[in-house]
Amino acid sequence: GSYGTASSQSPKILFRQLFEKESSTYTYLLADVSHPDKPAVLIDPVDKTVDRDLSVVKELGLKLTYAMNTHVHADHVTGSGLIKSKVPEVKSVISKASGAKADVLIEHGDKIYFGDLFLETRATPGHTSGCVTYVTGDGPDQPQPKMAFTGDALLIRGCGRTDFQSGNSEQLYKSVHSQIFSLPKDTYIYPAHDYKGFTVSTVGEEMLYNLRLTKDEDTFKGIMANLNLAYPKMIDVAVPANLVCGYQDLIPKSC
Amino acid sequence: GSYGTASSQSPKILFRQLFEKESSTYTYLLADVSHPDKPAVLIDPVDKTVDRDLSVVKELGLKLTYAMNTHVHADHVTGSGLIKSKVPEVKSVISKASGAKADVLIEHGDKIYFGDLFLETRATPGHTSGCVTYVTGDGPDQPQPKMAFTGDALLIRGCGRTDFQSGNSEQLYKSVHSQIFSLPKDTYIYPAHDYKGFTVSTVGEEMLYNLRLTKDEDTFKGIMANLNLAYPKMIDVAVPANLVCGYQDLIPKSC
Ligand SMILES: [Fe+2]
Ligand SMILES: [Fe+2]
Repeated sequence: GSYGTASSQSPKILFRQLFEKESSTYTYLLADVSHPDKPAVLIDPVDKTVDRDLSVVKELGLKLTYAMNTHVHADHVTGSGLIKSKVPEVKSVISKASGAKADVLIEHGDKIYFGDLFLETRATPGHTSGCVTYVTGDGPDQPQPKMAFTGDALLIRGCGRTDFQSGNSEQLYKSVHSQIFSLPKDTYIYPAHDYKGFTVSTVGEEMLYNLRLTKDEDTFKGIMANLNLAYPKMIDVAVPANLVCGYQDLIPKSC
Repeated sequence: GSYGTASSQSPKILFRQLFEKESSTYTYLLADVSHPDKPAVLIDPVDKTVDRDLSVVKELGLKLTYAMNTHVHADHVTGSGLIKSKVPEVKSVISKASGAKADVLIEHGDKIYFGDLFLETRATPGHTSGCVTYVTGDGPDQPQPKMAFTGDALLIRGCGRTDFQSGNSEQLYKSVHSQIFSLPKDTYIYPAHDYKGFTVSTVGEEMLYNLRLTKDEDTFKGIMANLNLAYPKMIDVAVPANLVCGYQDLIPKSC
């Protein structure tokens, strides 16, 4: 890849991690730069940084095809609706289980292709009932090590809260252990947020050092029940908007 | 590399980008994980995030050998002194031209080895008179594409200011064009700061899209002379401290 951070060793992939400071959200740009169209996807775009993201897409000569969300976010408004209003051919993607509107409603096992590369969907509910993790594919040209975009299911040394949006700590524990910790240990973990300035971890590292998910299930449930977190500032604005692709005042035509 | 983001295609390198939010500073961790000691270097550590950085070093089983600075920072206090007080075998590194104290004073062309990997020093004055860019080495096991740690000489789509610390816009223009834009176009640019959430760029990208360095020299000098920036908040604390490795109240024994 002559134009990006090949975080993994596929010559096809362009990869960029982008940060939104106010909500400490990571947006990820992936593209197949070996394909003549350079098709690209954005994972967890934020409304406030859509112009930045679309200008990188344009400068790198990419063709954005999907704006994907890992879940219905409670802390920021997704950029997927705004992206669709600016680039109408982009399709929004979210899980069917999320209850949100989108052009493509995916389920466990579904693949999202961009050029010869693809992301596979793993259902990882618990933070919300519709959370998914997108994992790069198996195959000779796919990124190696794999990359897992875990949303808020697994954060670096932590995890998302489970006290809102049908959150369920028992379910989150099972999701992370069965769907993420079962990946190869060298798989890169790219979360939706980080609050301490970490950018990446690996499955092996989180299996050893995650402050919550390394505990047994009962201890984990106790931790999650006693976080005493404040009511999320943005939740009453963000969740209704994110259920319709981030449109707040508009009635979305397609979403 | 089974433990990190191989941003480039050397199986030996572990690479981590770390962010300090208040000053929007990037710290970089590089290690040779194929070497039995896993020797590591930190580039531009920040005093406030030293504990975070040292805990990652420990968890990953690395042996920190150098705490390097690209220049005498005016916006934050370097972590190199604090690191040395906690891990006495670490050596601090800065350019001789910076006028700062350090264990190792490097000059243009000098190499810093960690295991079989190395960084080569390129003098890139202009933001300050002692600014250097550290570039990964040439050779079969060295990262490919190369990685350039540009400090404030070249930022993503921008550059550091030139109105303090012996700054000189003409010199900065020449430094970037002769020492950075002469690198292979696929070389990754890792700056000391980003204020918009970008994490990485490439030489090719900056040659096309940098908002300042793509202009001719006279236009560049005009831009830099008319930025009308505020006096740097931290400069009167940070510069004196950074001249002695970040020690503020202590008289450094070795620095
Ligand atoms: Fe969330
Ligand atoms: Fe600086």
